[in-house]
Amino acid sequence: MALSKGEQRGPQFLAMNPKGRIPLLRTDFGSLTENPAILEYVADLVPEAALKPQNHPAQLAKMRECNAYLSSTVHVAHAHGPRGVRWASEAASLADMKAKVPETMLAAFQLIENQLEQAHGPWMMGQEYSLADMYLYTFSRWLEMDQVDVSLLPRVLSHRAAMESRPAIAAVLAKEGIASLSRGEA
Amino acid sequence: MALSKGEQRGPQFLAMNPKGRIPLLRTDFGSLTENPAILEYVADLVPEAALKPQNHPAQLAKMRECNAYLSSTVHVAHAHGPRGVRWASEAASLADMKAKVPETMLAAFQLIENQLEQAHGPWMMGQEYSLADMYLYTFSRWLEMDQVDVSLLPRVLSHRAAMESRPAIAAVLAKEGIASLSRGEA
Repeated sequence: MALSKGEQRGPQFLAMNPKGRIPLLRTDFGSLTENPAILEYVADLVPEAALKPQNHPAQLAKMRECNAYLSSTVHVAHAHGPRGVRWASEAASLADMKAKVPETMLAAFQLIENQLEQAHGPWMMGQEYSLADMYLYTFSRWLEMDQVDVSLLPRVLSHRAAMESRPAIAAVLAKEGIASLSRGEA
Repeated sequence: MALSKGEQRGPQFLAMNPKGRIPLLRTDFGSLTENPAILEYVADLVPEAALKPQNHPAQLAKMRECNAYLSSTVHVAHAHGPRGVRWASEAASLADMKAKVPETMLAAFQLIENQLEQAHGPWMMGQEYSLADMYLYTFSRWLEMDQVDVSLLPRVLSHRAAMESRPAIAAVLAKEGIASLSRGEA
């Protein structure tokens, strides 16, 4: 589907997802939307991959806290750049929103930087790799695009490099022709 | 804590929650934030209350989809009224955002109205009462404040009335001195 052509708002896609947005996962019970819900659903399909803390209610709650923050604060902060029209109408308002994105994204990521410090890494949940790391990686790749000074976020950069050193991530980047952002940094 | 006095941004609260926001749940493993995470954590503490679909992966995924939508789309749409300063700086932008809230909230709730229709109610997950209903009820109480024409949302109004007819909800409203919105409607 070509987002640049607006196909996510065309009749064919709207029939599957009236929200007119990605992501959408087609399952045998119908369409599933919303990143945090899709991530947990996929993780629950393959429990042997241990993508969410098993039998640790506290860690599981903290992972969900992280995913909810990424969804409702980080993604939303970013969206005020390219998608401000969701929340305002005037060109001047959209420019004002766009100008504030570097500040709001930096503030959100400073909180994540502190969480990574407290977790004693390399992952958001400490030693335990989880969905929160995958989801965070998506947004940490957008920092330069959002004009955030990444030199202020050394632990986020280390996390990004650690993600890109995972064979599965490296394989996806290679297959999709996407540049690693941490070459030479890791 | 008095939100109207900004106590959530005072040093005492920031020490517990650097996000400077509510809700915050204090647990024996520390602070927990983010509504969807808190809701699931509390539900998991009392599995006998069956507040989330048990042993039904599809229903559980759909409940999480609903909660994520409420958190990242509905709550965010509402917040552009009172909290626009999170995403823009100029007074004209804030007024523009505020003016759009009735439209964005109505659009979000029309989607929920359709989901309630497809669920064949009375609850978001159909016959199964869940966290999604509690979380939805919070926001459906804000519709009039956000100047949404609730006559366009008959199933949302029925859901609100069904919530207020639950003894636990009625008891909390009475205890907190909060008016039922559905008196005479149910």
